[in-house]
Amino acid sequence: MIEASIVTIGDEILIGQVLDTNSQQLARALEEVGIHVVRMVSIGDKREEIAQTLLQELSRARIVFSTGGLGPTKDDITKAVLAQISGSKGYVKHEGQMQKVVEILHGRGLDVLPSNENQAMVPDRAHVIVNQLGTAPIMVFRDMPGSGSTLYALPGVPHEAVGAIPSIMEDIRAHQPLTQILHRSLMVYGIAESALSEKIAAWEDALPADMHLAYLPNTLTGIRLRLSLYGCTTGDEKERMEAQLIGLKALLGDLLYADGDSDLETTIGGICREKGLTLSCAESCTGGMIAHMITSVPGSSGYFLGSVTSYAIPVKEKVLGVPARIIEEKGVVSSEVAAAMAEGVRRLTGSDYAVSTTGLAGPSGDAFNPVGTVWIGVAGPRGSRTVRYVYKNDRKRNIERFAASALNFLRLYMLEDLKH
Amino acid sequence: MIEASIVTIGDEILIGQVLDTNSQQLARALEEVGIHVVRMVSIGDKREEIAQTLLQELSRARIVFSTGGLGPTKDDITKAVLAQISGSKGYVKHEGQMQKVVEILHGRGLDVLPSNENQAMVPDRAHVIVNQLGTAPIMVFRDMPGSGSTLYALPGVPHEAVGAIPSIMEDIRAHQPLTQILHRSLMVYGIAESALSEKIAAWEDALPADMHLAYLPNTLTGIRLRLSLYGCTTGDEKERMEAQLIGLKALLGDLLYADGDSDLETTIGGICREKGLTLSCAESCTGGMIAHMITSVPGSSGYFLGSVTSYAIPVKEKVLGVPARIIEEKGVVSSEVAAAMAEGVRRLTGSDYAVSTTGLAGPSGDAFNPVGTVWIGVAGPRGSRTVRYVYKNDRKRNIERFAASALNFLRLYMLEDLKH
Repeated sequence: MIEASIVTIGDEILIGQVLDTNSQQLARALEEVGIHVVRMVSIGDKREEIAQTLLQELSRARIVFSTGGLGPTKDDITKAVLAQISGSKGYVKHEGQMQKVVEILHGRGLDVLPSNENQAMVPDRAHVIVNQLGTAPIMVFRDMPGSGSTLYALPGVPHEAVGAIPSIMEDIRAHQPLTQILHRSLMVYGIAESALSEKIAAWEDALPADMHLAYLPNTLTGIRLRLSLYGCTTGDEKERMEAQLIGLKALLGDLLYADGDSDLETTIGGICREKGLTLSCAESCTGGMIAHMITSVPGSSGYFLGSVTSYAIPVKEKVLGVPARIIEEKGVVSSEVAAAMAEGVRRLTGSDYAVSTTGLAGPSGDAFNPVGTVWIGVAGPRGSRTVRYVYKNDRKRNIERFAASALNFLRLYMLEDLKH
Repeated sequence: MIEASIVTIGDEILIGQVLDTNSQQLARALEEVGIHVVRMVSIGDKREEIAQTLLQELSRARIVFSTGGLGPTKDDITKAVLAQISGSKGYVKHEGQMQKVVEILHGRGLDVLPSNENQAMVPDRAHVIVNQLGTAPIMVFRDMPGSGSTLYALPGVPHEAVGAIPSIMEDIRAHQPLTQILHRSLMVYGIAESALSEKIAAWEDALPADMHLAYLPNTLTGIRLRLSLYGCTTGDEKERMEAQLIGLKALLGDLLYADGDSDLETTIGGICREKGLTLSCAESCTGGMIAHMITSVPGSSGYFLGSVTSYAIPVKEKVLGVPARIIEEKGVVSSEVAAAMAEGVRRLTGSDYAVSTTGLAGPSGDAFNPVGTVWIGVAGPRGSRTVRYVYKNDRKRNIERFAASALNFLRLYMLEDLKH
């Protein structure tokens, strides 16, 4: 297996101002093709530190990635180090990147200054991949002196670094002897990782030796189950994986919400689009998070009509039509109020389906419910249904779990309802 | 200046499954007391790699922090490495941590297993700081063999690692010769970093040699300006800093939204609480994000009444009472619709103030407005007002900037209105 190392250059990360998301994105892309990241290192903008760290990582790993240190003001240091350690004799201008520099600056109504022109100058041993999103080129140094390893130098700006990943992966595929790997993901919600692992233990134990299952959990999306097959040679690997997945899907039942990478809001959006259905929501303790998740999907305006965040009791009564009597008798965090909220917003917006939440995200509970309690309601053409969960996280995390659980409850209700 | 290094242990980060937020939080806390983080390294769960990396970092930096590798199943490796490189002769049980282990497990209704008891066993050269939030102890190894440096071993679980920071900072203050540093932050919104830098250039240039200003930008909170004074000796430093800040505040005017660390939603919440005012919002393109931000503040139920996300035009008309004629004549992304939405939700909820958004977050614009256009409306006892912005980001980023700009516009309107 090929080993790789990622070096991030820049003081912003070391003082905690910026979170290093580039390394994560790169690591994910590498892991998908079976390249194993063995180290990630963040260092400052110091010439000697950069040179020493890159040389050390090159001696350990077959491929090293550096990000950052290539901007118009600071690039001198990193680029000079790259020229030196690659054994370059001088700099050459790269016409493709120069065109991009001119195009980008003119697009912003700016003149091209000498410092910008320098962006297109690269050490003569560099192979250039044109950066389509910025002025600093992506440089590849093959067969580095001393180690024989390959160095990819990426810009530090996150959208430029992430934007460069596809071209870099293409270059890697063309130059490295990769093991063929196939991946297939299934998205699961509504079960703890440990319980899921027990549930599918027999299936997992019976997997052929060349297949491996990974559990990738996330608060908002649940668990991504990724089945990987290493070392494709016979040509029937896709069929063999699909055959295994049939058994897994049967075990998962309706815990499975998507075949392939996805999230709950995209899955629900897909159901709405396919069946021509519309949605709305009424939120209390989630305070807008559910609507925010639903509308983060491009094209959601095609099926999401709107929502009401009814934080105050009079808004629950007046806007959503929750009867005051129910609130008084059952309490504001109750099954009855959750149902009345979902029915209320469905009536108000005229949507086919609606979901609601009422609960206590924190910091404190009330006389009847512990902090972390949520009642979720759903309403549709065939009536309403509710469920109660109690989570034990802080306010932020509780809000996230409430919102994701509500979306999953809505999904299950819609699926069952649509069978009729 | 004391130099530090942070080593993160665990495969989850290397495969890109988890983002390393622990290092960022730790780096921030260290930077505040003038400790300079010179390297961050992430490595896997391999014994030799852990030992070699820790020894190398200890030889470079006076303080090294490790996070991760201390769970009940995997701790053997890291703890064994720590015992070995610290020159410990064996393990001892730490009674304080043992009590915590029992307390945590019993609180979850679980029995204490031998693997749990092992959690409270530490190398005999370790000084223990009890982990109040988990079963794995925080260990301090002073005067490490070879380097004389100090090693702090923290758990990897983010809330435990971050929760341990205050105790660790206290230990550092007691054992390291820190330079005295004073910090004061001012929060600014509504100006680009470059424009702000020009605006206050003369003031910044005239700062005394022992003071330094840092710009810490963020999409949702604007720019944090942090003034630091290094090497307090005379006792009048606080007064000297406040005297400088008077000039800066005057230059900032109403760009300044908080004196001290804060964010827009907390600042607005403070105004509401102080004056006994209530809020509501009507969101189109921000899809619930503004309500989500407002309700992320603990205690927001005291002043936030609710919101309507009116994604569909009929919801704008029927729920918020936006006249169909205005939508037809002016378009849904218009000053008139923004104003009518804010007025509508204010009427509906009976709040003192309201804020609204209508715009195009992406991926595409419409016939009249480019993608990234937002109209923001505010309404209060003295009428309404609107403003238009155009941003050039992707959908996710545009939604964030729309929401933060709307909160800032609301803040400015409330402040002006409250003068009357």
